[in-house]
Amino acid sequence: MKIGVLGTGVMGAALGRYVAGNGHMLMFGSRTPDKARGLAERIGPDVSVGTYSEAVEFGELVVIATRWAHTRDVIDSSGPFGGKILLDCTNPETPDARGLVIGHTTSGAEEIARWAAGARVVKAFNHIYAELLDSGSRFGSDNATVFYCGDDREAKEIVAGLVSEGGFDPVDAGPLQNARYLEPAAQLIVQLVRVLEMGPSNVAFKLLRRAR
Amino acid sequence: MKIGVLGTGVMGAALGRYVAGNGHMLMFGSRTPDKARGLAERIGPDVSVGTYSEAVEFGELVVIATRWAHTRDVIDSSGPFGGKILLDCTNPETPDARGLVIGHTTSGAEEIARWAAGARVVKAFNHIYAELLDSGSRFGSDNATVFYCGDDREAKEIVAGLVSEGGFDPVDAGPLQNARYLEPAAQLIVQLVRVLEMGPSNVAFKLLRRAR
Repeated sequence: MKIGVLGTGVMGAALGRYVAGNGHMLMFGSRTPDKARGLAERIGPDVSVGTYSEAVEFGELVVIATRWAHTRDVIDSSGPFGGKILLDCTNPETPDARGLVIGHTTSGAEEIARWAAGARVVKAFNHIYAELLDSGSRFGSDNATVFYCGDDREAKEIVAGLVSEGGFDPVDAGPLQNARYLEPAAQLIVQLVRVLEMGPSNVAFKLLRRAR
Repeated sequence: MKIGVLGTGVMGAALGRYVAGNGHMLMFGSRTPDKARGLAERIGPDVSVGTYSEAVEFGELVVIATRWAHTRDVIDSSGPFGGKILLDCTNPETPDARGLVIGHTTSGAEEIARWAAGARVVKAFNHIYAELLDSGSRFGSDNATVFYCGDDREAKEIVAGLVSEGGFDPVDAGPLQNARYLEPAAQLIVQLVRVLEMGPSNVAFKLLRRAR
């Protein structure tokens, strides 16, 4: 699959490594593409770099991996997104990354869906630290869960495939509105990692299931 | 330990069975104590029933297990709570139990702490269905996690002990304010159970951890 990743920060870079490592064609989108070439070259010879618009045009699936404060500008300055899958791994965090700026009556994912007209938005990987993506999905004999939510069945299935490729356990968490639960769940992980200092690659959710 | 359980609905009954089964002395508090005697007798000969006030007076630890709409009235009509541990397993759910009435800038647990002056409030078990409490903490070789949060260290340690006694894995999720994350996390479980129909005793969180 051709995947554009918008953002070359810690999370964008880790998701770039993740999708390229699983055999996808990757273009990073950046405000300053020249500065992102080193990152792309370290991932692989075929990884390309472009503007945000070029990466959106390139991707069948586009990952938005920007800081929350920049997210709307990046979306507004790229696109059109019509029909593309937009994988939202962001969290609408406060500048100090210790809380959320919106919640309860809306969510980052729902805002993004309003901004990116026509995109098929799927929330996923927002509760997975970049360091955990790099270190892999295995915890002993357990695999970490990635919850995802969205309103388009096909888009969700494709994202679930991306989740599975890396050994993570995909769990369908319902419609996009349930990002109102997935974003606070990510903050729970943030609290464990940052405040209780468990370490970013050392904790993850697993959804335990019994046969019905 | 002497434990008062306020509320004799599905969750109050299950938590009563849980604490009595783990050897604690139990009194249910009810608006209509006579109607709760059958429940108490089914759990054990030493299980008692009283008014809400009597159950608060009885308990070194008091569990609030009421429907959200009744919670404030129950707290206002009982107490004083000074120094007692108040284990909050409620969720501030909408009447249809498919969403939360408050969140983001506050939480049910924080409201309860304001209402129950002097209580040492610990949020726990709010993401565990009554049916899961009854069926036990084991999922194959895994034990379900119970996240808890609060501002009083000793109260949290005592609640963590209650969690461990039933074979659940207690995870300290930080200060009481983090109920803003634990209550949406419970709604994620609600979505999986009720909307995606996985079944109330069939799903649970496990927090995976690696050595640092």
